[in-house]
Amino acid sequence: GITRKSLKLGKKEELKETNGAGYHSESKAKEYKYACKRACQRAVDQLKAGALAVEAVAAALVELEDSPFTNAGMGSNLNLSGEIECDASIMDGRSLQFGAVGAISGIRNPVLVANRLLTEAQKGKLSAGRIPPCFLVGRGAHEWAVGHGIAPCPSENMATKFSLSAYKRNKRKMELAEKTGQGSKQAKKIRQSSVTENGPGSLDTVGAVVVDLEGNVAAGVSSGGLAMKHPGRVGQAANYGCGCWAENSCNLNPFSTAVSTSGCGEHLIRTMLARECATAMQAEDAHQALLEAMQNKFISSPFLASEERVLGGVIVLRCCRCVEAEPTPNIQGILVEFLWSHTTESMCVGYMSAQDSKAKTHISRLPPGTVPGQSLAIEGGVCRLMAAAE
Amino acid sequence: GITRKSLKLGKKEELKETNGAGYHSESKAKEYKYACKRACQRAVDQLKAGALAVEAVAAALVELEDSPFTNAGMGSNLNLSGEIECDASIMDGRSLQFGAVGAISGIRNPVLVANRLLTEAQKGKLSAGRIPPCFLVGRGAHEWAVGHGIAPCPSENMATKFSLSAYKRNKRKMELAEKTGQGSKQAKKIRQSSVTENGPGSLDTVGAVVVDLEGNVAAGVSSGGLAMKHPGRVGQAANYGCGCWAENSCNLNPFSTAVSTSGCGEHLIRTMLARECATAMQAEDAHQALLEAMQNKFISSPFLASEERVLGGVIVLRCCRCVEAEPTPNIQGILVEFLWSHTTESMCVGYMSAQDSKAKTHISRLPPGTVPGQSLAIEGGVCRLMAAAE
Repeated sequence: GITRKSLKLGKKEELKETNGAGYHSESKAKEYKYACKRACQRAVDQLKAGALAVEAVAAALVELEDSPFTNAGMGSNLNLSGEIECDASIMDGRSLQFGAVGAISGIRNPVLVANRLLTEAQKGKLSAGRIPPCFLVGRGAHEWAVGHGIAPCPSENMATKFSLSAYKRNKRKMELAEKTGQGSKQAKKIRQSSVTENGPGSLDTVGAVVVDLEGNVAAGVSSGGLAMKHPGRVGQAANYGCGCWAENSCNLNPFSTAVSTSGCGEHLIRTMLARECATAMQAEDAHQALLEAMQNKFISSPFLASEERVLGGVIVLRCCRCVEAEPTPNIQGILVEFLWSHTTESMCVGYMSAQDSKAKTHISRLPPGTVPGQSLAIEGGVCRLMAAAE
Repeated sequence: GITRKSLKLGKKEELKETNGAGYHSESKAKEYKYACKRACQRAVDQLKAGALAVEAVAAALVELEDSPFTNAGMGSNLNLSGEIECDASIMDGRSLQFGAVGAISGIRNPVLVANRLLTEAQKGKLSAGRIPPCFLVGRGAHEWAVGHGIAPCPSENMATKFSLSAYKRNKRKMELAEKTGQGSKQAKKIRQSSVTENGPGSLDTVGAVVVDLEGNVAAGVSSGGLAMKHPGRVGQAANYGCGCWAENSCNLNPFSTAVSTSGCGEHLIRTMLARECATAMQAEDAHQALLEAMQNKFISSPFLASEERVLGGVIVLRCCRCVEAEPTPNIQGILVEFLWSHTTESMCVGYMSAQDSKAKTHISRLPPGTVPGQSLAIEGGVCRLMAAAE
C-alpha cells in the first residue's frame, strides 16, 4: 500500500472590497486568510485520517461556510426578500459522481447536502427502480436534507450583522436607482452603480480542490449567490460543469484535474468555466493553457459578447503520477500543479500539503492600472509529493 | 432581404409503453404524432409570420406542453408528494442567451417562463447594476413568472386522470417494494421492477429544434421529470448544456447546431449530452458523428460507468449556408440535416419545413432483439432550403 501522506491544495474566496476603507479591507483580508488556513488544515486532517479527496473537499468547505465573512453558509448574501438561499455542489474525480443543491434555505452547511446526494447516488437505485437525484432545489432540497439526518438551522441564525446591514444599504440603493432611473437620462449611469459588483462580500463564493495520495481529485463550491438576487435564482455553484469539476486521469486524459470557480454566476454558467478549464488543463503547459482558457473561454467568450465586464476566478489543480529514479525506484511520486486566475480585483487563496506544518495563504490582485472584468491575473506553482511504496 | 420561407424541424417525445397493452400503445402513439404535428404547424406559423427561430421553438413547446399525453406542462408526472414540478429551458443560437426554470409549480407553460428569462436578460442589467438571472427554481421562479405577467394555473388543473392513476399505481408499487425489499434476498429483484423506467409516459420529455431562413438556430426542452421523483429534483431539462443547446455558426464552427435531449435526467446531466452532441456535429459526417457521440459520450460514457442501462434520446439539427450554382446565383440556400437517435425503446419525432403543407411524424424504434439502454437507433435526413435573394 501507499502511505497516505497526502496533499491538500487550494481554497479560495473572492475578495471584493472596492468601496471599503483601506483599514476595513485589510482587516477583512486577514479574516479571509484565517478562514482559508483553517479550511486547509481541516482537509489535511481528514486526509491524514484516511479520507478520500472528496471527503476532504467537503470538510474544507464546511469550514469556509462556517466563516461569517464568506458568502457561503453563515453570513451569506441576502436575496431580494431578505432571505438566505444557498447553492453548493461537489464532484468526485474518481467515481465522476456529482451532487448539487440550489436555492436551499435553512441549512447551515449546504455542501454537506450536496455531498450526501453524491454518496447516496453511489449506493445505486432507490426502491422500485427509481433513479436517485443528483440535483435538488428549494424546499424539496431542505426536506431531503432533514430526512437524511442533516439538522435544519433557522435562517435568522445564518444572517450576520454585516449581511443584514448590507441588505438594508442595498435595498435603499435599489429603491433610489429605481426611483431616479425611471425614464430619466441618468438611468444608465445609476444602473451602473452596482449593488452586486461593488458590494463587499458580494462575490465571495468559496471553493476547494484536493488530490489525495492515491491520485484521486475532487472539487467543490458553495455560495450564497449574488446580493439582492431574485428568490429562486440559482448560480454556477449548483450547475454541473460550471461551479466545479473533477476528473481523474484515464486512457484519454493524462492528467487528473480539479477546478472550482467563483464570481458572477450567470457568466460562469454560460461559459461553463469549470469544465472548460479542466478540459484545457490536458494541454502540456498548464500555465499557458489556463491563461488562454481565461482569455478565450471567459473574457472574450462569444457566450458573453454583450457583457462589458466578465467577473470570475478559478482555482485549478492538475496532477499526474511520475516515476522517480532517485532516491530509489520504490518511491512513487505525484507531480501537482496548483494555479489560480481571476478577472476580479482580487482573490484569496490558501494551499497546503500534508507534508507542510501549516497552510500558505495569498491575496492575488490584478496588476495596477488594469480593468477588472477585462484583464486577468494568473499565478501558481508546482510541487512533488512522495510516498513510499511498501 | 431574404423572403422568410422558413423551416421548422424536429419535435420529439419519448414513447415508453413497454408494459402497456398493444392497443393502448398504438392509441398513445397516435396522440403523440398528433401533438407533434400540431407543434410543427405552430412553429411554422410563427416563422411565416416573421418570428425568429427561438420564438418558433417556444410556440412548438407550448403546444407539446398543452397536450395531456406528454410529460410536460399539462399531464406531467407527479412527484413523490403527488405534486407537479416542471423543468424547462430554451437557448437561442444567435445571441447564445439561455433561460431555464427548475421544479416550478402552478405554471401551465414552463417554457414561456424560460423564454421570458431569456428575453429579459437580453435587455441588460436590472436596477442598481444587478445581473438578470438565467435560471430560477421553485417558488421564486413561480413568483417571478407571475410578476412578469404569466398567469398562474392551479396545480390540480395540470394533473390528468391518467397522471393521477399512474401516481396511485406507482405509490402502491413503491410501498410494496419497500416492504418486501427490506433486508430480504428479493430486494434487488424488486428494486429492478421499476416505476420510472417502465411506467407509461415516464420519460416523455418534449423538445424542439428550429432553424429560420436567416440561419438562426434555437432549441428548447420541457419536462415534468421522472415519475415519483423527490420534490425539488431538477433534471436535464433545466440544466445548461444538458437539456438543449443551440449555437449559430461562427469563425470556429462551420455549422449551426441545435440539440434537444429526452430521457433519464440524471444520465443526461452527467454526460452533458446536448452540448456533447452539438460539439460532435461540427464533424463532416453528421450521421457518423452522432452515432459516435451516442455510443462514446452516452452509452459507454465514463461518467455513467456504474449504470447498466443508459436511457435517452436526442433530436439534432445542423445547417450551413450553401451557394447554389443553379438555377441562378441569386438563390441562397441552407443545407439542413435533421437527425434523431435514442437508446430508449422508441421515440416519436415530427418535422416540417415552411415549404411543406403538413408535418411528417415518425415513431422510431430500436431494432428487434436489441436491449434498451445498451443499443441505439439513429435516423435522419437532409433537406435544402431556398430563398430568393432580392
